[in-house]
Amino acid sequence: MKSVVLAADLGGTNLRIAAVDSDGTILHLTKRPVPKGVSPDQLTDLIREMGAECSGVVSETGRLSGVAFTAPAPVARDFDGLLTKLPNLPSLVGFNLKTALTDLFHLPVTIENDATAAGIGEHWIGATRGVENSICVTLGTGIGGGIIINNEPLRGKDGTGGEIGHICVEPDGRPCGCGSHGCVEQYASATAIERMAVESGMNTASAAQVYEAWTAGDKHAKAVFNTMGRYLGIMLAGLSNALNPETIVICGGVTAGWDAFAGRVESEIATRAYPVVAARAKLVRGALGDNAGILGAARSAFLVAQ
Amino acid sequence: MKSVVLAADLGGTNLRIAAVDSDGTILHLTKRPVPKGVSPDQLTDLIREMGAECSGVVSETGRLSGVAFTAPAPVARDFDGLLTKLPNLPSLVGFNLKTALTDLFHLPVTIENDATAAGIGEHWIGATRGVENSICVTLGTGIGGGIIINNEPLRGKDGTGGEIGHICVEPDGRPCGCGSHGCVEQYASATAIERMAVESGMNTASAAQVYEAWTAGDKHAKAVFNTMGRYLGIMLAGLSNALNPETIVICGGVTAGWDAFAGRVESEIATRAYPVVAARAKLVRGALGDNAGILGAARSAFLVAQ
Repeated sequence: MKSVVLAADLGGTNLRIAAVDSDGTILHLTKRPVPKGVSPDQLTDLIREMGAECSGVVSETGRLSGVAFTAPAPVARDFDGLLTKLPNLPSLVGFNLKTALTDLFHLPVTIENDATAAGIGEHWIGATRGVENSICVTLGTGIGGGIIINNEPLRGKDGTGGEIGHICVEPDGRPCGCGSHGCVEQYASATAIERMAVESGMNTASAAQVYEAWTAGDKHAKAVFNTMGRYLGIMLAGLSNALNPETIVICGGVTAGWDAFAGRVESEIATRAYPVVAARAKLVRGALGDNAGILGAARSAFLVAQ
Repeated sequence: MKSVVLAADLGGTNLRIAAVDSDGTILHLTKRPVPKGVSPDQLTDLIREMGAECSGVVSETGRLSGVAFTAPAPVARDFDGLLTKLPNLPSLVGFNLKTALTDLFHLPVTIENDATAAGIGEHWIGATRGVENSICVTLGTGIGGGIIINNEPLRGKDGTGGEIGHICVEPDGRPCGCGSHGCVEQYASATAIERMAVESGMNTASAAQVYEAWTAGDKHAKAVFNTMGRYLGIMLAGLSNALNPETIVICGGVTAGWDAFAGRVESEIATRAYPVVAARAKLVRGALGDNAGILGAARSAFLVAQ
């Protein structure tokens, strides 16, 4: 019988839970909206129901060996499961996710930062499979990172390594929720794209609409993606000089607008990084789409179970 | 009999060669000025003489097992010894250092980038001994870096990892010799300190003199070191967010002005890095002084010989 884990991606809008086997095959995936202002009890009920749905599939084909969640927050090595900083899910602050999951499933629980998980997933069976050194950038509401060095996730002393969304690209730039100024997250996330579009006078509500306008040749949308690609490229050129990676993989919702920014990111890296570094670093889109985080969390759970 | 290597630091001003044993003890060290416009033959003669002086000491106490040099240039994994980019030693461009050393000593030859070597040296027997994750910054004519992750030097795919002097801290900033703009090297190296001092109207010739003026309370010198510390801190805050290191160790000649900039570097990291990252990253001076590079190169040679 194959070993299977329940792997979940907890986002501000949706909760997605899947049964994943040790080859990275998703046996079953279920997705539900997270109600606005969800309480810890409501979320626990939701996880129980969705977990049972996935477990039902598993019982036929494998043995459930663990539960893996991603969290949209830094996950330090000594993280005990207590959610403290959740800008998109404030009603869950104070909820101990790890305790709740252990009580629900009586299985080992693994929690990974969402971007670290995406990096692990892409390295396991996605765009950076077989690649020794890579930088995974998740472009969504915020910007996260999962760095792989010598085929291992770079975790750092406290386990928070990879927080590349808060690398400064504009010393006196916009204030960031992290407490600093001019973080790349303020110029290259979906949130930033939306803000810059509004600032330029566009009548848009979402990054997807800015991209639609870009495809239609809108000059404001062009300027927005040009700025976005420039700052993302500046950050990645510097980080590439430091790490000399083979691949930079871009994940997250903003990749839908790839055509609008990838060229500028590449040209910044070509101009700003060392020639040998720029020639080496290949910019690619993630291969696992929305499932990168779930698959990376599953991979971590399998490694813990070994 | 102990194993001993000849380890050398080739700088723009001086050549330093030492006999180093496998515990990191410097048995003998000799230093000579590098003549301006030195030819490959002149340098080879110099290395022969200085090497013979060191070998004489070695023959009494150990067995010479290798030769290790640092180079003030990126050293790619496929580096065959041919010097191509040497801003401070242009007369040596086209000289194959590795071939010359092999012909001279008939021993295995190791060549390390000077800043990578400093990071390895400090981690071996200096300020970051026993520290799993660290960033070594060399502040001299330029800025280099040696990153240690999980007790190993981070080399990247081509072996050029650690080029942190060319992380951008000012998108439209000063042009840099590397081809980019606004690299931290343009704001925090000795060369930058001298340039900024002149720009502010100071009558100084060297970074050491700017520091002297700082100790005397000169307001221009204060502004220069404030700018220098600010940009160095911005770069290190971002890199710390990415790497979550325990220690940041500063090496190189500019550390002589430590009092004038370290506080500002620390305050930028405290303000800009994640709280857990900032609380962890300890800023310290190198413990090996001018010998960090020689000792790191020696360490690499011992590892190759094993």
